[in-house]
Amino acid sequence: MLLTRIKGPRDLDRLSQEELEQLAAEIRSFLVDAVSKTGGHLGPNLGVVELTIALHRVFDSPKDKVLFDTGHQAYVHKLLTGRQDFAGLRTKGGLSGYPSRAESEHDVIENSHASTVLGWADGIAKANEVLGREDHHVAAVIGDGALTGGMAWEALNNIAAAKDRPLVIVVNDNERSYGPTIGGLANHLATLRTTDGYERFLARGKDLLERTPVVGRPLYETLHGAKKGLKDFIAPQGMFEDLGLKYIGPIDGHDIEALESALQRAKRFSGPVIVHCLTQKGRGYEPAVQDEADRFHAVGVIHPDTGLPVSTDAASWTSVFADEMVKLGKERKDIVAITAAMLQPVGLKKFADAYPDRIFDVGIAEQHGATSAAGLATGGAHPVFAVYATFLNRAFDQVLMDVALHKCGVTFVLDRAGVTGTDGASHNGMWDMSILQVVPGLRLAAPRDAEQLRAQLNEAVQVKDAPTVVRFSKGVVGPAVPAVGRIGGMDVLRAPAPEVTRPDVLLVSVGALAPMCLEIADLLDRQGISATVVDPRWVKPVDEALAPLADRHRVVVTVEDNSRAGGVGSAVAQALRDAGVDVPLRDFGIPQRFLDHASRKEVMAEIGLTAPDIARQVTGLVAKLDGRYDSEPAATVD
Amino acid sequence: MLLTRIKGPRDLDRLSQEELEQLAAEIRSFLVDAVSKTGGHLGPNLGVVELTIALHRVFDSPKDKVLFDTGHQAYVHKLLTGRQDFAGLRTKGGLSGYPSRAESEHDVIENSHASTVLGWADGIAKANEVLGREDHHVAAVIGDGALTGGMAWEALNNIAAAKDRPLVIVVNDNERSYGPTIGGLANHLATLRTTDGYERFLARGKDLLERTPVVGRPLYETLHGAKKGLKDFIAPQGMFEDLGLKYIGPIDGHDIEALESALQRAKRFSGPVIVHCLTQKGRGYEPAVQDEADRFHAVGVIHPDTGLPVSTDAASWTSVFADEMVKLGKERKDIVAITAAMLQPVGLKKFADAYPDRIFDVGIAEQHGATSAAGLATGGAHPVFAVYATFLNRAFDQVLMDVALHKCGVTFVLDRAGVTGTDGASHNGMWDMSILQVVPGLRLAAPRDAEQLRAQLNEAVQVKDAPTVVRFSKGVVGPAVPAVGRIGGMDVLRAPAPEVTRPDVLLVSVGALAPMCLEIADLLDRQGISATVVDPRWVKPVDEALAPLADRHRVVVTVEDNSRAGGVGSAVAQALRDAGVDVPLRDFGIPQRFLDHASRKEVMAEIGLTAPDIARQVTGLVAKLDGRYDSEPAATVD
Repeated sequence: MLLTRIKGPRDLDRLSQEELEQLAAEIRSFLVDAVSKTGGHLGPNLGVVELTIALHRVFDSPKDKVLFDTGHQAYVHKLLTGRQDFAGLRTKGGLSGYPSRAESEHDVIENSHASTVLGWADGIAKANEVLGREDHHVAAVIGDGALTGGMAWEALNNIAAAKDRPLVIVVNDNERSYGPTIGGLANHLATLRTTDGYERFLARGKDLLERTPVVGRPLYETLHGAKKGLKDFIAPQGMFEDLGLKYIGPIDGHDIEALESALQRAKRFSGPVIVHCLTQKGRGYEPAVQDEADRFHAVGVIHPDTGLPVSTDAASWTSVFADEMVKLGKERKDIVAITAAMLQPVGLKKFADAYPDRIFDVGIAEQHGATSAAGLATGGAHPVFAVYATFLNRAFDQVLMDVALHKCGVTFVLDRAGVTGTDGASHNGMWDMSILQVVPGLRLAAPRDAEQLRAQLNEAVQVKDAPTVVRFSKGVVGPAVPAVGRIGGMDVLRAPAPEVTRPDVLLVSVGALAPMCLEIADLLDRQGISATVVDPRWVKPVDEALAPLADRHRVVVTVEDNSRAGGVGSAVAQALRDAGVDVPLRDFGIPQRFLDHASRKEVMAEIGLTAPDIARQVTGLVAKLDGRYDSEPAATVD
Repeated sequence: MLLTRIKGPRDLDRLSQEELEQLAAEIRSFLVDAVSKTGGHLGPNLGVVELTIALHRVFDSPKDKVLFDTGHQAYVHKLLTGRQDFAGLRTKGGLSGYPSRAESEHDVIENSHASTVLGWADGIAKANEVLGREDHHVAAVIGDGALTGGMAWEALNNIAAAKDRPLVIVVNDNERSYGPTIGGLANHLATLRTTDGYERFLARGKDLLERTPVVGRPLYETLHGAKKGLKDFIAPQGMFEDLGLKYIGPIDGHDIEALESALQRAKRFSGPVIVHCLTQKGRGYEPAVQDEADRFHAVGVIHPDTGLPVSTDAASWTSVFADEMVKLGKERKDIVAITAAMLQPVGLKKFADAYPDRIFDVGIAEQHGATSAAGLATGGAHPVFAVYATFLNRAFDQVLMDVALHKCGVTFVLDRAGVTGTDGASHNGMWDMSILQVVPGLRLAAPRDAEQLRAQLNEAVQVKDAPTVVRFSKGVVGPAVPAVGRIGGMDVLRAPAPEVTRPDVLLVSVGALAPMCLEIADLLDRQGISATVVDPRWVKPVDEALAPLADRHRVVVTVEDNSRAGGVGSAVAQALRDAGVDVPLRDFGIPQRFLDHASRKEVMAEIGLTAPDIARQVTGLVAKLDGRYDSEPAATVD
């Protein structure tokens, strides 16, 4: 095995081209084998094996910065920088599924939100310039999909303007975001990429050459010699060069020698340059290449030969949403759906198949998703924009200033909300219920089970003059949690015994944490503490019936799968203050820090978001109010 | 006067070209005269007189949607759609300085954040398609500056992909954002725009024509006939056409006849088309044209002949920041500054003049501003990104995921924070202290006076491993508010008399509201209510000394110039709960709604953010605790 002898990038220097190809083959089988066992991002990494090898041959990391956009394409980079134990990939204590600065000095960007790398690269290149580090290079790898994101454009516009600040942009063009990349840029890249494009290039070149006084040199050589001039003239790569970016390509992204040569030229160039590499997502793994939908973008545990999942999922939140959207689309012709390059993962594939004229994939472009939704609503449609909770952060300003200020009836469906776990810090959907609290008029639902998801989605799409949000967790939807009563718009999930005139605790349960809250109530019950459990269903605005209900309890406890800062608990506390209800309140949720990757269950245990932890603290508070202790036990939440 | 006879867009139909030119002249003198008296956006509107006339001649608003990006260029549109009383412009009850749906059915987008119009247009065009309204047109006007914003790119990418969905994009190219537009795109537009570009066009066209077998037709005609083919071949407009957008231009943006002809062609086209218009910001008003900095982008009250301000400002928060940055830049060579196309308004002009190698204008691109700052910090520099508070919303995800997650030492300076007033809903900086609460590790300072601004900025740029934020108000900085003591990191601004062992009220004053809080304390004092006033200086994280201090008072009151939802008051309340301190708290700030334009003072009065209002409510609460009333008076905040 060559691979096991690679302890760091410089170990690549002494390998021959033949050995490098052998190394690439070894890495591919390693990846298929390892990721089959753990799950993870397979397709993207199989596509960048040769590219990553070439990058680390040409650039001298960590002095030079080799940066990856949306770090799920960094497995090969990990293998080449001293990290070959993939057994614990994406599990607690094991390797992160993304670059991680805690793991290696070769890692820079941990963020798995797309389209950031050019901004990072521009900043680092500027720092090199300001601080006079002329021999430090920066190479940024970005997929064609990520180029559809607005911040990539903002960065390109800046990078292009600094004609003498060196920076190598590697466009990893596999024609895909999660699924196929969409939009005008994708069409343009296709032009650069297709045989037709090459033929036009050659035909025009030939045509030009015949009118150019170069005598006695073969066509090929002349073409190479005249390359720059030619390019400027016929410019299928015009877009980049119009911006002022030097363009090299297209390069076969699986030809290490060609890649190295192109990257060397780029590295020597005195300004910003784009190297356009054509790669194949899933390369070398037949089940992935055969999969048209997403080329095994991310997989669970699979059988390595067939690529088939080892286990099948029970019904997920996403699938419940998916089916309900098909039903809604049939009932209402004004309902349209929007996805930001994630048709399948957010559950809109069925809707798209049923109503192909009413689905809009905007690319990795959450800002545009939100603002075009405002336009659609203004034009009389009712858009449903389904997006991972964490990615809605990208569209905060648009939700506020375009959708809410203009009173547009747009429904945002936030999948993967709360602690998601294995993908690490930037995939947890723990921000939405906090930042959306400030948006005037916005209504936010957190369904607790499948039936509520269907019901609240139906309620949401009725709202014509304000944004609505329906947020739910990742994974399998739990069993139905029936209501035993209703107060205002809130479902009562558990009422204290009728003889209790002033129950101790009002438990406000948010979304999928309903079973946990019922368990907390059981635990309190065993301590002789009586509790009411309510699910407000719509957590914003705070239900008007909540303050009077709280006033009939001794303590209010809120439990949410969201950042504690400014979350539902804070909103409830404020509503109680505004009503003059000064009952003590304790709010449980996710502490204010970035969470390391681990399973959801492990993360929840670590942050104390479990029934026993919460029950223990509430018991302490009640004891304090009873005068049994001077103070309640120290909170474990931070 | 022709102008007074124009009651709506259709009144333009019967005017001759000569009359239209007379109308344009009348509008210009009206604007100079009216805006001199009230203040407002002068330069941008003088630049679009002919363009707006032509748009309303060609498109049939409100059936057709005529959309303006960054609506400060909509004064002419207002004049042509029945709104000619500019006396109360930007004052309470008068015309808004931006489009306003409450004012007119011809207004669609009220949002004054830039680069949104193409997203709106794409959405409305999609709705027209889905709902089968084939005769409804959409025309979107966007400045060259706004095209540097990422969401404009996201929209272009989507619009270009739908080749048979009609949509007219008017690029109002005046080579400026607020100041001159920067970046690769600007350079590209310059190429399209310059004589040199025309000459190349003509030269190459001629060259081609000589090789094209067209006999007996004059060059000019042939050029026109072969236009499409030519364009595709020589393509200085390549970038747009590479994306798949039809390009018409450049057009003289002050030639109504040429504009109408181009817009008519665009309107008839069966897909997306760009009409590239060259305009002159400040056109026809000599003082504006002579002003290289910003061509009278926005003015206060000025003398109409000279363009000189009628009054001069006392020292502003911005100017204090500006001077301190020059000092810091001298002391520390690693300090660099970033602006998003607002060098002058955010006070970085002096820094740029002193250290031209350390200023980065990223265009209207807050996302890139934040992420490139993360890159700069990673590269060893300390960036200071100065931006209007409301525009930081655009970069929320980047502050969280790029800067904070990566523990980058980046300082954000938020100008125009809090209620700004006259610019209306979308310019108020009332969101920052709420949404930034969720960002782990971020430290946020709200200086109360000039001395504190200088001190806290100096503290902020010392922090190497986390984002820091310094936020301050618009306008004149108030007199110094001295501290009389210190508790933890908090300044005590007023202590109760020493004989008071348990004072009634702890007033937590945020930033520039310190004088108001001292006034509240005075008012309470007259009611026999004792108060301590503290300024935490750094409002995030909540100072550890606050909870024990609160525990020695009967009531805690927080006052902030920021949204109440999830703001400093909520953070303080949570910190008290976490410390087991259940002292009643009341939080005063901006209610959760969009604020109509009016002066800051009028807005503050309307929302009850005044010393008498707050003192009255606190008095009621103390009375309730004393048992003198059953309940405190109803809160006036909503």
